[in-house]
Amino acid sequence: MVAGDGIGIEVVEQGLAVLDAALAGTGTTVSPTPFDLGAQRWHRTGETLTDEDLASIRTHDAILLGAIGDPSVPSGVLERGLLLKLRFALDHYVNLRPGKLYQGVKSPLAEPGEIDFVVVREGTEGPYVGNGGAIRVGTPHEVANEVSVNTAFGVERVVRDAFARAQARPRKHLTLVHKHNVLVHAGHLWRRTVEAVNADFPDVTTDYLHVDAATIFLTTNPSRFDVIVTDNLFGDILTDQAAAITGGIGLAASANINPDRTAPSMFEPVHGSAPDIAGQGKADPTATVLSVAMLLDHLGLTDESRRVEAAVAADLAERGTRVRSTAEVGAELADRVRG
Amino acid sequence: MVAGDGIGIEVVEQGLAVLDAALAGTGTTVSPTPFDLGAQRWHRTGETLTDEDLASIRTHDAILLGAIGDPSVPSGVLERGLLLKLRFALDHYVNLRPGKLYQGVKSPLAEPGEIDFVVVREGTEGPYVGNGGAIRVGTPHEVANEVSVNTAFGVERVVRDAFARAQARPRKHLTLVHKHNVLVHAGHLWRRTVEAVNADFPDVTTDYLHVDAATIFLTTNPSRFDVIVTDNLFGDILTDQAAAITGGIGLAASANINPDRTAPSMFEPVHGSAPDIAGQGKADPTATVLSVAMLLDHLGLTDESRRVEAAVAADLAERGTRVRSTAEVGAELADRVRG
Ligand SMILES: CC(C)[C@H](C(=O)O)[C@@H](O)C(=O)O
Ligand SMILES: CC(C)[C@H](C(=O)O)[C@@H](O)C(=O)O
Repeated sequence: MVAGDGIGIEVVEQGLAVLDAALAGTGTTVSPTPFDLGAQRWHRTGETLTDEDLASIRTHDAILLGAIGDPSVPSGVLERGLLLKLRFALDHYVNLRPGKLYQGVKSPLAEPGEIDFVVVREGTEGPYVGNGGAIRVGTPHEVANEVSVNTAFGVERVVRDAFARAQARPRKHLTLVHKHNVLVHAGHLWRRTVEAVNADFPDVTTDYLHVDAATIFLTTNPSRFDVIVTDNLFGDILTDQAAAITGGIGLAASANINPDRTAPSMFEPVHGSAPDIAGQGKADPTATVLSVAMLLDHLGLTDESRRVEAAVAADLAERGTRVRSTAEVGAELADRVRG
Repeated sequence: MVAGDGIGIEVVEQGLAVLDAALAGTGTTVSPTPFDLGAQRWHRTGETLTDEDLASIRTHDAILLGAIGDPSVPSGVLERGLLLKLRFALDHYVNLRPGKLYQGVKSPLAEPGEIDFVVVREGTEGPYVGNGGAIRVGTPHEVANEVSVNTAFGVERVVRDAFARAQARPRKHLTLVHKHNVLVHAGHLWRRTVEAVNADFPDVTTDYLHVDAATIFLTTNPSRFDVIVTDNLFGDILTDQAAAITGGIGLAASANINPDRTAPSMFEPVHGSAPDIAGQGKADPTATVLSVAMLLDHLGLTDESRRVEAAVAADLAERGTRVRSTAEVGAELADRVRG
């Protein structure tokens, strides 16, 4: 596991405690390997993620990641050199981010139960590929480009995964979000792919929204969404907005999945390292615990996954305005999981 | 003026009526030239915007645009060939979009008066430049790229404009929105430029948000924003979300400004052509009328601009749940403007 920076360390500790509780008595045990990755390692060694780190991570079943980033590290260094490097190297092409409004959680935009969708964000292409560059940097003649790369191979596999997820859900609905009226090449590839793959999932209904319109519907009618499939950057944007309307990033879980299981998948809260509250026991570990539920589900431990999610749901329904420390929330969740 | 498609025709009619009302007795008169551009023209002639159209448009003081687009035209044709072509050819590098919650308008996220910001969206660069392409289209080996182009020249001029606007507002605050932890080349150009230009506007305070975080704050704390400066695509996304939290796109105005006045600026509602309600007199012309206020302001007719905005504000404060036709709203606004 990669606790990372800031509150990552605190929330991962609680996530592991809940994971232990969920597995107690099942015969399955966890032996977490702590990986020293993040801001401290970089300051000490200048390294973000070495080949040795990666090789060692590959030998594991799954990765639980806290949060990475610190203001003392130049922007982009840890994001590109560590977090995105993990997602790309381990081929996490399905970045799964549920948007669910649990009972007890207040949203200005909907009643509990009315928001229940999942965003399937592409994780290995788009404007995230690092295919940019700049010339004449720092002069009045600087030109800085960023290239979004989209392949039929990459789009089809994530679209297929999204269709399968939609088919397994009661509403069986898939919304493609892109901007094909402006990003015509990439957008039309996405659109054609959704149309083509739909033939293999005839019971799934589909619609399309431009990304700008999607932000409107997330505000005015979030219950219209079931499964959203979208590119890496649009998925980044929409899932933060989705978190905001479902109780905040303190509750937003995510899974970076390699569906082909050629490398371990990675589970992480959507929030960052929040250096302003780090070390104070103030962080809510709920998003990490929900990410642990996704981890269990991915490993086929479906019952255990359900118990963890149920524990969170019960905790949220009853938490009211009680102020608890990170460790208290974790301990209560672990207790609920033990039953 | 370019009425365009769908409800564009209806709302522009009312916009012109209010413009006439605002200018009555001032000695200034409008002689609008209707341009036949949009879906019908394309179907008839295959043309989107010819050199002759552009040359003729250039001879005017300003452009009032309704809405462009129809499902019968392939996605991208009118957007790239007409709307964006106008913005690029006429060098509309400042795309100005106010986010203001008027009295009488309900928002789930704030009280009237609490939201009052303006987005300065770059209009001539970024992923909108049309610098993309694809190979092996339609095969399993397709690769589709989109290139975001950002220049020091282009970024600096829009950042400078945004600083000037921030300086003229009571709060004097500027927020840069980008994603410089992933789009490192473009993002760092934007960041360095804001830092450098700040030296010329020392009384303006600045902060920075990643675009994903910006969508969170637009939900949880929209009153924190004063002036936002951002790239073309992020601006597209954020301004639709901004519209959603300030009463919907029926109220959202925009101005595509050429601050150097080397070509006419263009004023248009943020909404589209809404073919589903076109021709029924159901469209709210308010966004167009507010765009007319921006047009008057741009032409130096400050008092007239204020009267138009005041008429809209009064109308919104009193409209309640009354259902009125497009023409009725337009006529009442024109009456108010006449005073
Ligand atoms: C930290 C950053 C690189 C990352 C992303 O943009 O993917 C984060 O915002 C996320 O959503 O996981
Ligand atoms: C129609 C489309 C090309 C346009 C854009 O993306 O700029 C629209 O969404 C807008 O915001 O004016």
